[in-house]
Amino acid sequence: MTDELILTEIDSLGSAKIVSPVRKGENGFTNYDFVSDDERVLIEVEWVKLAERMKNESPIPSFEMAGPRDKIYFDPSKLKCALVTCGGLCPGLNDIIRAIVLELHYGYGVRHVFGIRYGLQGFIPQYGHHMVELNPEAVTNILEMGGSILGSSRGPQPVEDVVDSLERMNIGILFMIGGDGTIMGASKIAETITERKLNIAVVCIPKTIDNDIHLVSRSFGFDTAVDVATQAIKAAHNEAESYPNGIGLIKLMGRYSGFIAATAALAEQNVNFVLIPEIDFDLEGDRGLLKTLQKRLELRTHAVILVAEGAGQKYFINKKVEKDESGNVRLKDIGPLLKEEITSYFSNKGMEVTVKYIDPSYMIRSLPANANDGVFCSFLGRNAVHAGMAGKTKVLISHWNDHFVHIPLAATAGKRKHVDPCGALWRSVLEATGQGPLKNHSEE
Amino acid sequence: MTDELILTEIDSLGSAKIVSPVRKGENGFTNYDFVSDDERVLIEVEWVKLAERMKNESPIPSFEMAGPRDKIYFDPSKLKCALVTCGGLCPGLNDIIRAIVLELHYGYGVRHVFGIRYGLQGFIPQYGHHMVELNPEAVTNILEMGGSILGSSRGPQPVEDVVDSLERMNIGILFMIGGDGTIMGASKIAETITERKLNIAVVCIPKTIDNDIHLVSRSFGFDTAVDVATQAIKAAHNEAESYPNGIGLIKLMGRYSGFIAATAALAEQNVNFVLIPEIDFDLEGDRGLLKTLQKRLELRTHAVILVAEGAGQKYFINKKVEKDESGNVRLKDIGPLLKEEITSYFSNKGMEVTVKYIDPSYMIRSLPANANDGVFCSFLGRNAVHAGMAGKTKVLISHWNDHFVHIPLAATAGKRKHVDPCGALWRSVLEATGQGPLKNHSEE
Amino acid sequence: MTDELILTEIDSLGSAKIVSPVRKGENGFTNYDFVSDDERVLIEVEWVKLAERMKNESPIPSFEMAGPRDKIYFDPSKLKCALVTCGGLCPGLNDIIRAIVLELHYGYGVRHVFGIRYGLQGFIPQYGHHMVELNPEAVTNILEMGGSILGSSRGPQPVEDVVDSLERMNIGILFMIGGDGTIMGASKIAETITERKLNIAVVCIPKTIDNDIHLVSRSFGFDTAVDVATQAIKAAHNEAESYPNGIGLIKLMGRYSGFIAATAALAEQNVNFVLIPEIDFDLEGDRGLLKTLQKRLELRTHAVILVAEGAGQKYFINKKVEKDESGNVRLKDIGPLLKEEITSYFSNKGMEVTVKYIDPSYMIRSLPANANDGVFCSFLGRNAVHAGMAGKTKVLISHWNDHFVHIPLAATAGKRKHVDPCGALWRSVLEATGQGPLKNHSEE
Amino acid sequence: MTDELILTEIDSLGSAKIVSPVRKGENGFTNYDFVSDDERVLIEVEWVKLAERMKNESPIPSFEMAGPRDKIYFDPSKLKCALVTCGGLCPGLNDIIRAIVLELHYGYGVRHVFGIRYGLQGFIPQYGHHMVELNPEAVTNILEMGGSILGSSRGPQPVEDVVDSLERMNIGILFMIGGDGTIMGASKIAETITERKLNIAVVCIPKTIDNDIHLVSRSFGFDTAVDVATQAIKAAHNEAESYPNGIGLIKLMGRYSGFIAATAALAEQNVNFVLIPEIDFDLEGDRGLLKTLQKRLELRTHAVILVAEGAGQKYFINKKVEKDESGNVRLKDIGPLLKEEITSYFSNKGMEVTVKYIDPSYMIRSLPANANDGVFCSFLGRNAVHAGMAGKTKVLISHWNDHFVHIPLAATAGKRKHVDPCGALWRSVLEATGQGPLKNHSEE
Repeated sequence: MTDELILTEIDSLGSAKIVSPVRKGENGFTNYDFVSDDERVLIEVEWVKLAERMKNESPIPSFEMAGPRDKIYFDPSKLKCALVTCGGLCPGLNDIIRAIVLELHYGYGVRHVFGIRYGLQGFIPQYGHHMVELNPEAVTNILEMGGSILGSSRGPQPVEDVVDSLERMNIGILFMIGGDGTIMGASKIAETITERKLNIAVVCIPKTIDNDIHLVSRSFGFDTAVDVATQAIKAAHNEAESYPNGIGLIKLMGRYSGFIAATAALAEQNVNFVLIPEIDFDLEGDRGLLKTLQKRLELRTHAVILVAEGAGQKYFINKKVEKDESGNVRLKDIGPLLKEEITSYFSNKGMEVTVKYIDPSYMIRSLPANANDGVFCSFLGRNAVHAGMAGKTKVLISHWNDHFVHIPLAATAGKRKHVDPCGALWRSVLEATGQGPLKNHSEE
Repeated sequence: MTDELILTEIDSLGSAKIVSPVRKGENGFTNYDFVSDDERVLIEVEWVKLAERMKNESPIPSFEMAGPRDKIYFDPSKLKCALVTCGGLCPGLNDIIRAIVLELHYGYGVRHVFGIRYGLQGFIPQYGHHMVELNPEAVTNILEMGGSILGSSRGPQPVEDVVDSLERMNIGILFMIGGDGTIMGASKIAETITERKLNIAVVCIPKTIDNDIHLVSRSFGFDTAVDVATQAIKAAHNEAESYPNGIGLIKLMGRYSGFIAATAALAEQNVNFVLIPEIDFDLEGDRGLLKTLQKRLELRTHAVILVAEGAGQKYFINKKVEKDESGNVRLKDIGPLLKEEITSYFSNKGMEVTVKYIDPSYMIRSLPANANDGVFCSFLGRNAVHAGMAGKTKVLISHWNDHFVHIPLAATAGKRKHVDPCGALWRSVLEATGQGPLKNHSEE
Repeated sequence: MTDELILTEIDSLGSAKIVSPVRKGENGFTNYDFVSDDERVLIEVEWVKLAERMKNESPIPSFEMAGPRDKIYFDPSKLKCALVTCGGLCPGLNDIIRAIVLELHYGYGVRHVFGIRYGLQGFIPQYGHHMVELNPEAVTNILEMGGSILGSSRGPQPVEDVVDSLERMNIGILFMIGGDGTIMGASKIAETITERKLNIAVVCIPKTIDNDIHLVSRSFGFDTAVDVATQAIKAAHNEAESYPNGIGLIKLMGRYSGFIAATAALAEQNVNFVLIPEIDFDLEGDRGLLKTLQKRLELRTHAVILVAEGAGQKYFINKKVEKDESGNVRLKDIGPLLKEEITSYFSNKGMEVTVKYIDPSYMIRSLPANANDGVFCSFLGRNAVHAGMAGKTKVLISHWNDHFVHIPLAATAGKRKHVDPCGALWRSVLEATGQGPLKNHSEE
Repeated sequence: MTDELILTEIDSLGSAKIVSPVRKGENGFTNYDFVSDDERVLIEVEWVKLAERMKNESPIPSFEMAGPRDKIYFDPSKLKCALVTCGGLCPGLNDIIRAIVLELHYGYGVRHVFGIRYGLQGFIPQYGHHMVELNPEAVTNILEMGGSILGSSRGPQPVEDVVDSLERMNIGILFMIGGDGTIMGASKIAETITERKLNIAVVCIPKTIDNDIHLVSRSFGFDTAVDVATQAIKAAHNEAESYPNGIGLIKLMGRYSGFIAATAALAEQNVNFVLIPEIDFDLEGDRGLLKTLQKRLELRTHAVILVAEGAGQKYFINKKVEKDESGNVRLKDIGPLLKEEITSYFSNKGMEVTVKYIDPSYMIRSLPANANDGVFCSFLGRNAVHAGMAGKTKVLISHWNDHFVHIPLAATAGKRKHVDPCGALWRSVLEATGQGPLKNHSEE
């Protein structure tokens, strides 16, 4: 992070001149603390590293603090907003929808909020999805529901068509909730808006159950995912322990990062191996997974393995080549691959094992948020509204060093966080599992 | 049930002459109601059918009531008992283990109870599994654990070896908890015991998460299974509703019967199709599943399908022939088959759908029992002890017409309950789902 | 039960002549099994007792089987129905409302179903509560909600006014869900209907979280209540175990019966004392609760006590006299009384104890039903509709000997089930707790 | 925080010279990143405020980063550690115990870890509590248990006796888990250790379910508490909504701060009033709670009120005076007071209301930690071990600006965090509830 250029300034549609209605209202605030654009949160809070940067950089990299401004850009009585959820499901989508609608309605008096159905598809006329009018009544009981009341869809839609649609609807703020692809899409939409000289703010809330968005210390839904993943681990442990040489194998989400698997392993007490995309491992060989698993079974007669869906990708390159003729594309999934490899390894050894494979992914993604994520989503949604009302655009709401901040879309789009192989999280996993390096040759 | 011969008399090792220690003890019972062998529960409680039988049969078929007897066969101070759990995991195993141990210890003063490890394997010396001494201390905190603290294994072991082992250990009562295979195994063990003229009682508690044992109106773990299955249904519904033409497909347990799928469909509000082994259905054709699913999607844009693992077996016979050369045995699993058929059907129609497939089986089997099953298991375990102490053998503890009863192993082994296509359960499922017959040609 | 007159014949409004629309419909039933009024479930299923009755009584007492009839009394196209929930909350109310509405709508084609707001108040114009039109749309998502979507209220309303209201609305079937008081109220309403020669069927579903309605083996919500009560027990146990001489004291529901407390004690592993209305106990004295509790603490340093709200009423008679001047009516609550008595007993002994008191009642009553109760409610609701459509009146839907049956209101109103001090439930509690008689003088 | 002196330097027993065994071990770390004492986390991360401080203060206030050091002070092969949990229960105690034991054992090879029973009582011989030897086996299955496996007790014990005991046991590191009182006690113990020139490190982990410890951004158990509190809110809402003018009143923990109540209100969707110690409110008067509640009921017919146990203390001062003669000390509890005030207010108005009061405190405190708290506790425990092994003393493990840090006991003892009346949390509560100021006269 320290050795790259970070653009931290937030674009805006123009100067915010309207007095914010949240100042003094029915809520009875008399000493309302607005947030000023000058309030900024340091990106680097470790003093030695910061001092180093202070010698060379000016200004010191920092993010604008999120929160309500005393002046706003849009006239609430005329403003129309649109809200869209994109990509895979993630616990908390409805909490964010609800927070945005309530803050717009009660906090600012905005009366026209439109929910776009099924992701970006909802902007494209030929799909025929109707918009939903969102008001407090419509969102009052949605927290217990999982999924998104607006629906979602994957993949991009033509940017020009989306902006046409925004123009036709006379939208002032577009709230987009989605993952990396959505953030990149939002950037393009915002560029086109700029090119057309439209007054439309684009405000994003980053969504990734994997918790791997760059410059976002925590993303919503992750905590719920870990919570529920522990139930799968318990099940796998019970199955493993109940049979001689029982092996519980659980595939968890984590396409490019292993945060869910690593964190869930710390939340539960019975995980023996964690395999994640960031850490290479060998299957074969003296220190490989299979041999190490065999030793574990010989010692303790049961084992639990967590594998992130993106782990061990190197095995598919080999596999593909090997099995090309049979056209077997099914093996791209690490879970079944591991199950097969384990089964055939022990079968060759003449050692009877029982492998129980659990893939709880869809039982996790579609859940309602737990309380912690619910509160977090409520702040994300409210801060997105504050940002949009102040005329901020091309902005993403992040949580950084324990504060809610504004991040320019350009600073994070296309980049990812990873589990640091030398950091405290992975170190704790290694200590908790005792799994060792699982590599035949050390990296050095 | 009414048109077959039911043997309802329970074998015993000999006359029970010892005064039961539960009569008056520290518990302060002063008006203890023992159960007499004369107390019997009618098998048929519908009066017209019963009256019909009374004309022709004598005696009227009835089961011996379970419960403590005032005279017992075994001398508690000398008795040794063995306890074994066999087959797949099922919520409640530990509850039963605990109830048996506590009743033997506190109710009768038996001091030697041995837990056999890993199912029948634990009787066979070459596996090298050590027995576990079971006392109140050992079982005090096991209710929260899923699985079986004794472990389990599948498949039979040589009957003679098992009986050798029982003889060697000088066991008086063998408690066996297992499914249909175990009950048949128990019969053979009991026969061999009889042949060898040993004084060993064999008492079974029927285990089947599918709830399909003949003459057993409810089996433990089923309620917990339905409970948890509803969580998978919620997830599937959320996924389905969140995408255009979203389809949630859940495979539930039910090899020969559809009780779990049918009951779970009634417990939740959003199931549109239930496929079970007892009810034939067509995939293709105007009234087949695929076409009916298409209509549902056109009308409501999402659908949830529950399929019991044993449903639609006819499709594997065809498939096998078709794909024999490629040796693809994977398709024996109805879940993935349905997923493929649905995907390819809509792909051919050019209709974009999203199918999310959930298989929660191992997350269900290994759970601890819910409160309801816990209480039920506690009664099963205690009644098994009462039966064994009274010298009953070749007996199974069942729940019938709201009473705990004794059933001879011979009466139930090898037979199954099924969902009645004309009964109230399936009728309610049809009403709740509105799925229709899913058959191109009616049965008539 | 055996020594009292049981009226088991069900009243009806007249002969059912209309062919039931459930016979063959979109559901594709081809072999629909209707239930005939001749199908009856024996009340007594223990053979010896039954044989005894058969000598003396004719006919043998039995209940009419519930379920759909092939002829119905009401013309669905003209029928209007009303539905009301009365008294305290209980898990499952919404499940029943939903089942009744769906069965009327889809099963019979009834298009006018009215929900009465806030119990019987909703019939009385001066309260100004508006009725709610109930259709599938209105009930589609109510299972996750606790409470009753119709609301409730306690206490009676003038019978004549209620019947006026029914007449004004032109109601054909009135569905009432409520406890003992409601059943008695329903009887009076039905009598007035008869007197006025109106064609209004009154069908009740018995509600009591305490599970103590006469001739009803299981009432809805009870299972959920036990389920949640176990969480309070776990909490109390954890508190008790974490302090020297820690005592966890939990008050559970059970005004006249101890089914919840007794059953919850069996579902959990850590209860040491269960106090219920049916079993007298002494506080003072050598074998009284306080001394026995002291012994338990000396032996094990912690204890958990479950008390049903109606237990130990004899102590209030004394207390009232003692404290009458101070007008202190607060002590009618056994929970705080026990807490005080325990605290002061050990304080007098100079023995330091920590008492943690938990009253989870309102956290239980207002919950949604668990899966088991949900399915049960679904059958209750559907059978209530079948009964009403067939013109049955003054009838209550019960579950008896594992079958859903019709019971005349007169047979059960004003009577209660109790925990049998000599039965298997209480015996198991005594065995599980080892609490002993808690009486200084035995009953003999 | 900015206008007070913060001592941020951590004491140590002496120079750490032994090479840490975690460097390269069975875990296979080859690039292990140790934390250096020079790595420090800024206390203030808002740039403007920081820049201000940088002008005046030197050095800039910062906390030492927690984590493993490459040199340690104690020789693991000789070290003995003691571990004690003090004060009220809080979810996560067992998770911390487990993490400390596992890190000492596997991370450093320490073989002697003693658990002190029942808080500080366990150090005092006359209580007769025996120590517990803690090793991996002893802590392997404790995460599912609530409470503390060591037990706890409230109140101080003589400092000299505690240190005598530590000396007698030859303890090198004392781990203390407890609240504000415990931290102050730890300071005194550490002072006495210094006076006696003993080589005993004292390392604290702050425990407060209220989350109100100064300089600790998050304390363990808080997240679980909020999670469970939402269940009580749901119950209260269901009760409130089900009766005409239904009022659900929930008392939550929060003696001096309202973090739990405020956060839980954001996690749930149905709270109308939140009362916390930090924000004064009036009961009577035109803008007081009672009148505002009346308006809410007239508008919406039901209401939910959350009250932190420490809210509204001013009413007890008055009450005490008024009711002194009757000696009624019971009213110190705000929950029952509010219930009475509300009931009598509406009774005087002749307006029928139903108040349901829920106090879930003991059902929350004694729960096991949820996954999020579990992971957090695991890091707290491991970092406490790293601190102690490095010879740090008089130190507390905190989480600050998203990093685990060391804080001197002196910096935090006796001080509290409060909900900021002008901050984002309370602002969100006001927006979510719409409750208004609840004061007759504004503060200005």
